[in-house]
Amino acid sequence: MDTPMQKPHDRLATLLSGDMDGVNALIRERMASKHAPRIPEVTAHLVEAGGKRLRPLLTLASARLCGYEGPFHVHLAATVEFIHTATLLHDDVVDESKQRRGRPTANLLWDNKSSVLVGDYLFARAFQLMVEPGNLRVLNILSNAAATIAEGEVLQLTAAQDLRTNEDIYLQVVRGKTAALFSAATEVGGVIAGVEEEQVQALFDYGDALGIAFQIVDDLLDYQGDSSATGKNVGDDFRERKLTLPVIKAIAAADDEERAFWKRTIEKGDQQDGDLEHALALLNKHGALDATRADAQAWTDKAKASMEKLPQSELRDLLVELADFVVSRVY
Amino acid sequence: MDTPMQKPHDRLATLLSGDMDGVNALIRERMASKHAPRIPEVTAHLVEAGGKRLRPLLTLASARLCGYEGPFHVHLAATVEFIHTATLLHDDVVDESKQRRGRPTANLLWDNKSSVLVGDYLFARAFQLMVEPGNLRVLNILSNAAATIAEGEVLQLTAAQDLRTNEDIYLQVVRGKTAALFSAATEVGGVIAGVEEEQVQALFDYGDALGIAFQIVDDLLDYQGDSSATGKNVGDDFRERKLTLPVIKAIAAADDEERAFWKRTIEKGDQQDGDLEHALALLNKHGALDATRADAQAWTDKAKASMEKLPQSELRDLLVELADFVVSRVY
Repeated sequence: MDTPMQKPHDRLATLLSGDMDGVNALIRERMASKHAPRIPEVTAHLVEAGGKRLRPLLTLASARLCGYEGPFHVHLAATVEFIHTATLLHDDVVDESKQRRGRPTANLLWDNKSSVLVGDYLFARAFQLMVEPGNLRVLNILSNAAATIAEGEVLQLTAAQDLRTNEDIYLQVVRGKTAALFSAATEVGGVIAGVEEEQVQALFDYGDALGIAFQIVDDLLDYQGDSSATGKNVGDDFRERKLTLPVIKAIAAADDEERAFWKRTIEKGDQQDGDLEHALALLNKHGALDATRADAQAWTDKAKASMEKLPQSELRDLLVELADFVVSRVY
Repeated sequence: MDTPMQKPHDRLATLLSGDMDGVNALIRERMASKHAPRIPEVTAHLVEAGGKRLRPLLTLASARLCGYEGPFHVHLAATVEFIHTATLLHDDVVDESKQRRGRPTANLLWDNKSSVLVGDYLFARAFQLMVEPGNLRVLNILSNAAATIAEGEVLQLTAAQDLRTNEDIYLQVVRGKTAALFSAATEVGGVIAGVEEEQVQALFDYGDALGIAFQIVDDLLDYQGDSSATGKNVGDDFRERKLTLPVIKAIAAADDEERAFWKRTIEKGDQQDGDLEHALALLNKHGALDATRADAQAWTDKAKASMEKLPQSELRDLLVELADFVVSRVY
């Protein structure tokens, strides 16, 4: 099974399969509710839809890479997955999404109420889990991450259709919606293992840069992707009027006429046949897709470089490959 | 100012005004967001609407009553208020409410998205705050309370219009939606003060019983209240098809014809002119309002009795008076 052709996160999952069994068992145990059967129904729909479990894998890999032998990396990995799942439930309500991981969303199958309240339950369960290792620094990191995630989501709400949104604001949103949980996932692995500060920082940097690269790639694929490979339709973000990095770069280089086009289509949401094609032409004219790809590559390189501070091992090699794999999707 | 005519929670607020100033300052400081101004806008709308701040007062009173001299009861009181505020934001989305504390709700003034995400932010801020005292038992109590609250809300979602909902299920819902935060608020006051187990348990029991009495009184006022005094219209819960204690008691004593009436009006939601009057007649026929009042009184008595395990003081007297005051609204 372990061939070089397998994707790096699949090989991580194989290498850490004993730990992941523990994480999955803990998730099943803690998503239960004695009184409210609706909770495990909604949660199972999402948790068992076959997500990649990338974030808990990052926690397990970070802890093991730092030589951790105790039991609590499993709790922290489950915590991270619960926070992620809660966020997805609430995101789908906020975005009025109808599909997630190829299946109808919980807000569609049940209702918005269930998604909001079951999301709250999973947040609370995450906090119960993160208390169990009894490590105050871990609690600080994860509660800070939860605040950064929510702040990023609110910022996105106001910034998404505002043409003044620049690359700095985009980066804040991305750190909130994606990178904060990646960096917390890797950082707590090092903290629980008790490694020295420089290595903890390197793990944080890896997660932060990987998360940013991951989100930039996602936003780029929306304009250049092959929908059969990505499962996304080209132009979804354009139609939903989301200001992502490619468009931000094109707007920064726009003349008056182009600015008026973006204002009409993104800010006012007045879109007509042919607008997506025109948007793509403008992105190409200003080299915005190439520049976005270069940014994703730079964050990937940063992630890989930070791994040099950690001990050489098969796990470290896989984390480096994972960073390469994330950006490989846009070449 | 300090006359016997003042309500007990106003006198608590006066007695603890120095501590409450600290709580209010901390709430203002922590509801800020560097990046997302929408967050303090939404939060301020609710926080500054003049709620009674009953839950933080319970934490401050419990800690002081136990002789606590440190600074962290203020953090825990702010934590409890943030959890409460987050819950209100999400409740108003779930209930599609239009008014709260006599003002338009945040979901109406902004949108559901803002209420969901700002609520998440306040939950995260609450967890950051509760970590600061560095007390793991406090973290356990408050994260357990957060899970119980969310579980109770989900249970209510499925139980509210289900005629099989009995008094046991009602009590679980009430513990979740109201009593769990009351009992956590009082219990952490004792824990942070480091008093002995019997007194911690007494504080938990007081908060639990007070919270249950509080919610039963609220549900009873919905059927017997004077709308000018309570700000609620008689029959709101009936119109919203909420199965609360008075109706549960009437259903338990119903004959077949009465059962059919409750099935039509509550389960199916098919309500006609005169139905509320008929419902009130059935509640009176079976003595359901009197029996509900007796339950509220019994919980009040339990709350007062638990205070006997704590040292005699002005604060203890006020907590006893507070329990009497809660139930006095239905006589």
